[in-house]
Amino acid sequence: MKIKEIKVFVCCPGRNFVTIKVITEDATYGIGDATVNGREMAVVAYLEEHVIPCLIGKDAQQIEDIWQYLYKGAYWQNGAISIAAISAIDMALWDIKGKIAGLPVYQLLGGKSRKAVTVYAHVNGETVDDVLNNLEVAIDQGYKVARLQCTIPGIAGTYGTLGKKKNYYELQGDRPLPPEHGWSTTKYLNFITELFKQARERFGYDIELCHDVHSRLTPIEAVQLGKMLEPYRLKFLEDPVTYENTDGYQVIRNQTAMPLALGEKFNTIWDAKPFIENQTIDFVRTAATHGGGITALKKLADFAALYHVRMAPHGAPDLSPICFMAHMHLDLWAPNFGVQEFIGFGTSTLNEVFKYKAELKDGSIHIEDVPGIGVDFDEAAAEKYPYKRSYLPVTRLEDGTLWSW
Amino acid sequence: MKIKEIKVFVCCPGRNFVTIKVITEDATYGIGDATVNGREMAVVAYLEEHVIPCLIGKDAQQIEDIWQYLYKGAYWQNGAISIAAISAIDMALWDIKGKIAGLPVYQLLGGKSRKAVTVYAHVNGETVDDVLNNLEVAIDQGYKVARLQCTIPGIAGTYGTLGKKKNYYELQGDRPLPPEHGWSTTKYLNFITELFKQARERFGYDIELCHDVHSRLTPIEAVQLGKMLEPYRLKFLEDPVTYENTDGYQVIRNQTAMPLALGEKFNTIWDAKPFIENQTIDFVRTAATHGGGITALKKLADFAALYHVRMAPHGAPDLSPICFMAHMHLDLWAPNFGVQEFIGFGTSTLNEVFKYKAELKDGSIHIEDVPGIGVDFDEAAAEKYPYKRSYLPVTRLEDGTLWSW
Amino acid sequence: MKIKEIKVFVCCPGRNFVTIKVITEDATYGIGDATVNGREMAVVAYLEEHVIPCLIGKDAQQIEDIWQYLYKGAYWQNGAISIAAISAIDMALWDIKGKIAGLPVYQLLGGKSRKAVTVYAHVNGETVDDVLNNLEVAIDQGYKVARLQCTIPGIAGTYGTLGKKKNYYELQGDRPLPPEHGWSTTKYLNFITELFKQARERFGYDIELCHDVHSRLTPIEAVQLGKMLEPYRLKFLEDPVTYENTDGYQVIRNQTAMPLALGEKFNTIWDAKPFIENQTIDFVRTAATHGGGITALKKLADFAALYHVRMAPHGAPDLSPICFMAHMHLDLWAPNFGVQEFIGFGTSTLNEVFKYKAELKDGSIHIEDVPGIGVDFDEAAAEKYPYKRSYLPVTRLEDGTLWSW
Amino acid sequence: MKIKEIKVFVCCPGRNFVTIKVITEDATYGIGDATVNGREMAVVAYLEEHVIPCLIGKDAQQIEDIWQYLYKGAYWQNGAISIAAISAIDMALWDIKGKIAGLPVYQLLGGKSRKAVTVYAHVNGETVDDVLNNLEVAIDQGYKVARLQCTIPGIAGTYGTLGKKKNYYELQGDRPLPPEHGWSTTKYLNFITELFKQARERFGYDIELCHDVHSRLTPIEAVQLGKMLEPYRLKFLEDPVTYENTDGYQVIRNQTAMPLALGEKFNTIWDAKPFIENQTIDFVRTAATHGGGITALKKLADFAALYHVRMAPHGAPDLSPICFMAHMHLDLWAPNFGVQEFIGFGTSTLNEVFKYKAELKDGSIHIEDVPGIGVDFDEAAAEKYPYKRSYLPVTRLEDGTLWSW
Repeated sequence: MKIKEIKVFVCCPGRNFVTIKVITEDATYGIGDATVNGREMAVVAYLEEHVIPCLIGKDAQQIEDIWQYLYKGAYWQNGAISIAAISAIDMALWDIKGKIAGLPVYQLLGGKSRKAVTVYAHVNGETVDDVLNNLEVAIDQGYKVARLQCTIPGIAGTYGTLGKKKNYYELQGDRPLPPEHGWSTTKYLNFITELFKQARERFGYDIELCHDVHSRLTPIEAVQLGKMLEPYRLKFLEDPVTYENTDGYQVIRNQTAMPLALGEKFNTIWDAKPFIENQTIDFVRTAATHGGGITALKKLADFAALYHVRMAPHGAPDLSPICFMAHMHLDLWAPNFGVQEFIGFGTSTLNEVFKYKAELKDGSIHIEDVPGIGVDFDEAAAEKYPYKRSYLPVTRLEDGTLWSW
Repeated sequence: MKIKEIKVFVCCPGRNFVTIKVITEDATYGIGDATVNGREMAVVAYLEEHVIPCLIGKDAQQIEDIWQYLYKGAYWQNGAISIAAISAIDMALWDIKGKIAGLPVYQLLGGKSRKAVTVYAHVNGETVDDVLNNLEVAIDQGYKVARLQCTIPGIAGTYGTLGKKKNYYELQGDRPLPPEHGWSTTKYLNFITELFKQARERFGYDIELCHDVHSRLTPIEAVQLGKMLEPYRLKFLEDPVTYENTDGYQVIRNQTAMPLALGEKFNTIWDAKPFIENQTIDFVRTAATHGGGITALKKLADFAALYHVRMAPHGAPDLSPICFMAHMHLDLWAPNFGVQEFIGFGTSTLNEVFKYKAELKDGSIHIEDVPGIGVDFDEAAAEKYPYKRSYLPVTRLEDGTLWSW
Repeated sequence: MKIKEIKVFVCCPGRNFVTIKVITEDATYGIGDATVNGREMAVVAYLEEHVIPCLIGKDAQQIEDIWQYLYKGAYWQNGAISIAAISAIDMALWDIKGKIAGLPVYQLLGGKSRKAVTVYAHVNGETVDDVLNNLEVAIDQGYKVARLQCTIPGIAGTYGTLGKKKNYYELQGDRPLPPEHGWSTTKYLNFITELFKQARERFGYDIELCHDVHSRLTPIEAVQLGKMLEPYRLKFLEDPVTYENTDGYQVIRNQTAMPLALGEKFNTIWDAKPFIENQTIDFVRTAATHGGGITALKKLADFAALYHVRMAPHGAPDLSPICFMAHMHLDLWAPNFGVQEFIGFGTSTLNEVFKYKAELKDGSIHIEDVPGIGVDFDEAAAEKYPYKRSYLPVTRLEDGTLWSW
Repeated sequence: MKIKEIKVFVCCPGRNFVTIKVITEDATYGIGDATVNGREMAVVAYLEEHVIPCLIGKDAQQIEDIWQYLYKGAYWQNGAISIAAISAIDMALWDIKGKIAGLPVYQLLGGKSRKAVTVYAHVNGETVDDVLNNLEVAIDQGYKVARLQCTIPGIAGTYGTLGKKKNYYELQGDRPLPPEHGWSTTKYLNFITELFKQARERFGYDIELCHDVHSRLTPIEAVQLGKMLEPYRLKFLEDPVTYENTDGYQVIRNQTAMPLALGEKFNTIWDAKPFIENQTIDFVRTAATHGGGITALKKLADFAALYHVRMAPHGAPDLSPICFMAHMHLDLWAPNFGVQEFIGFGTSTLNEVFKYKAELKDGSIHIEDVPGIGVDFDEAAAEKYPYKRSYLPVTRLEDGTLWSW
């Protein structure tokens, strides 16, 4: 079953998404998500000029060979742009294979290891009270796990909070240049413990909580935070330190019982390897779109399982529903699934472009059994929402030093 | 001194090159090389859509801040495409700073540590005799170091040999799709020792020799090769094993005295870090274009020096003369410079587009003292040689398995 | 641009300073600080007899080569005296290069990474109340970070406190022989926590605090202290243990979340290397004068950055304003700058000899943009304040045992 | 018994030597060697201005306390200049203590562990034949161990060979500026094996051989050399790699059975510690003058013994007979003595200034039993040979790069 055509689409139904459609000679097609937030057009060029011409005429069933062809065959293979292109092709090919087999992708992976996919909600706010009120709502909605983020007093533009926006899909069109956020580790460390202290006082320990540091700390500061938060028993602390400092995680590990999550920036299993081998993390956060697609994530999950490391895939709003649904199949299958990040099913605009069937019930996602990944992409609807140049923010310390966002 | 405009050019004077020109408000300009072979247009899109709009109006003197802004500020910062864009901007800014200061860039790095830059020649051939005859020519031309590569009998399309081509600049236009080469480790290991045995018998040990394995072996095979070649005292064996397998280099290191070179695929100092810290390599091969520009390569050289690791920058024909000249400044300065890969000054077509003054004398390159990096880019000439889609080859084993090229 | 003459000056405008002036054939000059407190005349002899004769006629632009020449070329290269000589030459050569380029030295390093240099004040006192009253003054003056030191009851002559002296520049002439201070680790550990407890109670957690142990503890005592002080969240604890016991820092690291600062005695990057590689410290305190000048400190900063270790250069009153201003350039540039020690701009006597423009505003230093390092040295004024033999104190335990001061 | 006076002498009876004489109130005196070759006057200033004033009136018997006072009490304590001063004081105090006790110093250390001190001769030459002829002479003279060094063809000024000079004491006056030697690792590795091959062929394996690389190699090059020389079973290979690269010795250790000697540049036991703890060396070469005197060397020997590392003290011609005799006492005592470097008893000029009784018999040194260290210093004779400014050479690679001498 030869690949006849591969189309690339960029649309902005709230956020920018790069979507591909692989079409075989018999008109079966599969779709994949190739979005790299703020770097969308580089992936488009990568696909159109450097990947797609090489794939026309190849057998769509040869997923492993095509993966290796695109990775090793690129020579300059590593990095977010390259891997997003590979990931999208890979997803689309699994989608096709599922359709050929008449089976949902999770069946091709080996079947379901669980009934449904536990997710964690994003619970944010401008103040502690605000966050806790939102947490109450989330608990009432049935969520069993929630990530708490709160605006830090005195810091302009805290990660993970929305300010006056109503939802994540309003953010993007407003950023024709990268907004500059502020950061103060002192202010953050002086404030953040209170959030979890009050959360536990008000809601007890049944609700599982996590928190994303977004790579703002040095290892010893992460130790401090880990120790301060230990009494509140988080499910995990995410990205305490930039992932480049692999041994820094050993410093954290030696001193605090806080479980750690990392990996949304991992592009390959090799990026994850030192953390998993040394057991310095507990949850690996790599997304199908940024980590090499379904082929690569199955291998990563199997490797992590050897070390009691669990999967907790990235689920930010800049990953399209195709990636979300790819995660559903991986999460249903993986014997070492942990939890899935989830920011809701999105706006009606989003759902006009991407069609899929999934339901949130008691804090878990249930999907319908349809062949392939189970998402359709409405080309005509997508055309109504053209790409808008947009960037993620950058962060500066109070003295002007550029810092990790 | 604010950045007013940044232009991106793609041209193919024999090979495809991506070139940028950063122009300040007072009309000072600097140029940089952003070429990623076979992935050129992805870098162009990355620069035009995602980098350049953010830099207009910034102070061109703020090189470190702009570097961090483009790296940390990208969030999805890693990989060949992203780093090539950063590298090119960085080179152009150092070019500008040199012009502002009225000094060659090596002076800004701390001055010259040596009189000239020792290079190693590419010496190839279809048979051992062929290679050795070419080596004789190279020695007669004054080269002190040579890399020997020979077509392996029975393998179609060996890396590093030219077949019927006359020079490296004829290769590119012919590859509208990736050619597929063959590979057999058994045939290679059965053959390659003879090349170095005969080279030593015919030319003795004064000429320094090296060899590029191009990542085709497993660690234990690399140990075998290293031990077989030890009597011929190579300056280094390059890329015996893919760089992703960091600990694999420890396996090699524990058993053979063969010096090892690695790193043309490193995009950041973090890629190099485990190899340097563990002293499993001896020469680091990262190019300015693929490793973050002059800012990043100075840091890499200084880091490597602590561990007796020397710089041997990549010098393939797919790096433009801008990168070559950036290397000249780094090589003249670096206290731990080893040797520079060099494939000649290129064709008249190439030199019509890129203008610079460098001279080969007794196996070393001498450059002229001009402010900045010392290359000019002829926009009109470049227009005559438009980009041609082209790919590096891919490799398959004899049974069809995709392998590292 | 050849070096024509190098002059060495020793003067005591409050404290003893060794200053050099490197003069080129075209009368450009650069100045450097070669002060080693209590060992001044050894550096003078080292420079005059063993360094300067070798440099006359050398090219002043060849900074890296001269650095290596003086370090490797000394054979017996290591140690405070040797490195102070090298450091001063290096500073003077960067001063000259800046003047040649018409640029402040920070521009040659890659430009500014921040608007201004955050400093930490010395806040001392005879009693806890005394310290806290002085802290109030410092906070009112705009300082954001302060180092608290308090006389320990029952110990004669605590490090870091002034007794009846008004300022640091009164200390030196009074010490024709080393004064002997006392020490009791028990008394210290029984007392010091109270200082930080009360500081936090009175001033909260906005003001950042640090503390210098001055190498008086064993590793396990440092663990005790670190854990006792954890609730008060210090920015760092400095020199808990002598730097010779490298592995001792691992003992501390394994048990306390307290950030650690070390390194004012490091003379080379190799002294710093095990601490940085093993991530057992968080701030490196090496001064340009004691650590090899600007050339060496740039390398150290870049190395430290790989491990999330930040620069916090030594800023004691025995480092001359030349070293202070060299730090300003390094601090403005370094992407991993942490904080600068600062003991004020000194007396009018000091400023009669050393002329430079720097301003303290809201706890940060701002400097003027002038070519080079930006300090001038008034030879005639210096002559009015001749060298006075003077020593740092030594310390003994209560039973007479000689201890680290 | 209080110290009344300490005199410092610099003389050049062939080589420059810094000598001190510590005189007590009852006119007992001890002498010490403070020579740092090429940096003599810095040590003189260090002693006269910064050490001696502090010691007048102190009890000469308090050797340990004075050692700690000068080391810890200096604050800026480390490095060659500082330690040479401490070492000389320490030797002189042990000399005094021996005189007080009426015993040779080895008796105070615990008595003799052997009858005499095995030495290794310096055997050099311009050609292999030349070296081997000199080795024959050495064997005939009774030497059991010899260090072989040969001029490397094509390299100007090889370390360890004399050229046209007759002996080591002619070298110094000729070097008012550092001579520049050349180096080529390739030429060295291509040549040196032959020397040992022929030595073994001509003289068999009874004579023990060693060789000094003088820190010219990288770790992997040292592995190569070690493996090439293994068949010739050297007693040790000295200084294959600069001592700053501590982990580099692990690289060598993992691959070759060649015993390694290192440490003439160690100033303290802390410098030696990582090499000894990790058992990456076999002989420690620290001299009494450069390593802290008799007090420090006793501790170093005892520490090394824990790891089967043996003492092989430095014995270059720039260490005065005082240091030589201090070594005799240490060597006679140390249970883990290995071998002593020995360049002969020097010229008549030298022996006019330094008087001591020692005899070479069958390749071992025997000393007379006199109280103290057993050397006298003739002040009047010394005056006849005033200090001449002189430097050790520096080394450059063929391209001009500064290299370790």
